[in-house]
Amino acid sequence: MSVLVVGTVAIDSIETPFGSAPNVLGGSATYFAYAASFFTRVSLVGVVGGDFPQQYLDLLRKRGIDLEGLVVQPGGKTFYWKGRYHEDMNNRDTLEVQLNVIADFEPVLPPSYRQIPYLFLGNSSPALHLKVLEQMERPKLVLADTMNFWIETQRPALLKLLPRLDGLVLNDEEARLLSQDDNLIRAGKKVRELGPGFVVVKKGEHGSFLFSQDGVFLLPGYPTENVVDPTGAGDTYAGGIMGYLASDDSPPPGRLRRAIAYGSILGSLTVEGFSLNRLQATTREEIDERLEAYRRMITF
Amino acid sequence: MSVLVVGTVAIDSIETPFGSAPNVLGGSATYFAYAASFFTRVSLVGVVGGDFPQQYLDLLRKRGIDLEGLVVQPGGKTFYWKGRYHEDMNNRDTLEVQLNVIADFEPVLPPSYRQIPYLFLGNSSPALHLKVLEQMERPKLVLADTMNFWIETQRPALLKLLPRLDGLVLNDEEARLLSQDDNLIRAGKKVRELGPGFVVVKKGEHGSFLFSQDGVFLLPGYPTENVVDPTGAGDTYAGGIMGYLASDDSPPPGRLRRAIAYGSILGSLTVEGFSLNRLQATTREEIDERLEAYRRMITF
Repeated sequence: MSVLVVGTVAIDSIETPFGSAPNVLGGSATYFAYAASFFTRVSLVGVVGGDFPQQYLDLLRKRGIDLEGLVVQPGGKTFYWKGRYHEDMNNRDTLEVQLNVIADFEPVLPPSYRQIPYLFLGNSSPALHLKVLEQMERPKLVLADTMNFWIETQRPALLKLLPRLDGLVLNDEEARLLSQDDNLIRAGKKVRELGPGFVVVKKGEHGSFLFSQDGVFLLPGYPTENVVDPTGAGDTYAGGIMGYLASDDSPPPGRLRRAIAYGSILGSLTVEGFSLNRLQATTREEIDERLEAYRRMITF
Repeated sequence: MSVLVVGTVAIDSIETPFGSAPNVLGGSATYFAYAASFFTRVSLVGVVGGDFPQQYLDLLRKRGIDLEGLVVQPGGKTFYWKGRYHEDMNNRDTLEVQLNVIADFEPVLPPSYRQIPYLFLGNSSPALHLKVLEQMERPKLVLADTMNFWIETQRPALLKLLPRLDGLVLNDEEARLLSQDDNLIRAGKKVRELGPGFVVVKKGEHGSFLFSQDGVFLLPGYPTENVVDPTGAGDTYAGGIMGYLASDDSPPPGRLRRAIAYGSILGSLTVEGFSLNRLQATTREEIDERLEAYRRMITF
């Protein structure tokens, strides 16, 4: 079944201690869609400006990503982010943000998108997430991302959104902030009590936790020796999860666990190159091989 | 087969945001021996002062730990450590250290200890480790711990020790320091190239990596909701590893992987109480049950 993603499409300029990549393709919806496209058909809702390079549109279309929902505002400029990673590659500073066309974007779903069964709400305001949900006809599974800023400034709207989600993806710091509990296991369980059917807590290189009706599922991070650019790892992680879920009809809990594992693999590939470079070089076959190697690495 | 541990026996005073425990039983050899005693017979080499409480000796003897090698210096005072944990329970400050009797202790092994097949060298100087090794007759397996201080101040002696070890246990920060590589996967591999047959890199609550001829093995941390006192978790982790190895003759790699998993379980129990309190309340049966629950939590 197919997946709909609502999120950002961006131009990124990235600096790391080991190199830089100016004006490359970025954005949460971009990374998500590219990762999910290894598993199923993906449709994208977002906005770019007239400056958005044709080659980037071609790159997404070449993977079969449906861009009917991508609004191009000819007079506008595309969302721009510039960041610099620290020596340890786990922390980064935002050097520049230009919201441009996303500043007052209100997503309107093309009619053909309203029945898409799998919906991913990329990091955005809970109010915008609710507006997207209102345009959908009974989605089978809704997964959303959130961040510190919304937890701190829009908690009431977020608490209204959470019970409408099948799953929520957030990082360890966000889970602690949302639950107001320092212990990550208790934090994950408390976030789930706020409404989502399952909660995925990401810990970056340290892996992730899944809290669901099946209890706690743990995954260490896939061991990556060659970290080039961590940008987009979280979004491709979500894309791997959602893409796989949409492609597998078997019953839980195995399906959800495998989805999380695929998410980790997509994230691990993403960081091995700038922008989508490493993902462009991979195949579903390589992804499956890495998944099996991963499984062997955690079996005792 | 039986295990010999050479390390510290201490009196600890511990403060956490949630409570405190003054003058409790501590020390690397104590924690290690107690954990290993769930799997096999353990003999201990260390030193205490005349002030060391009889009840603590009884507590160790009750678990069958052989204390023939524990020197009691009637006129001396036992090694004392006082520390305070931060709110997140991952960091701590040392408030007071009194080396006392361990300041110039030179371990002499009782003759009956020299043929013990499994040897654990608790955190101490590489020079002392080498002196202990010289007293042993062909141990079957030697595992050692180390720390930043020795890596920074006694690197040449440490580099002489490493090729004589079957295994080395160290934390992530120490692995980076020893290998001079920020990437933990490369760091673990580089440490192994310095000599030890296998290298275990501990990441605290985030789990651990094993680097061996079998490649990389990953374990997330056992999810603990109730962290009371992290003191001794690393030593009981090593005790679980070594105790299990000494009790299982099956071929690698499964044996070493199971040993690491048992180490994680012993560490996870330890942090659920002050000092040895939680370990005193556990059984081999509970340990095995937790191991199986752990296995289910990481299977996809």
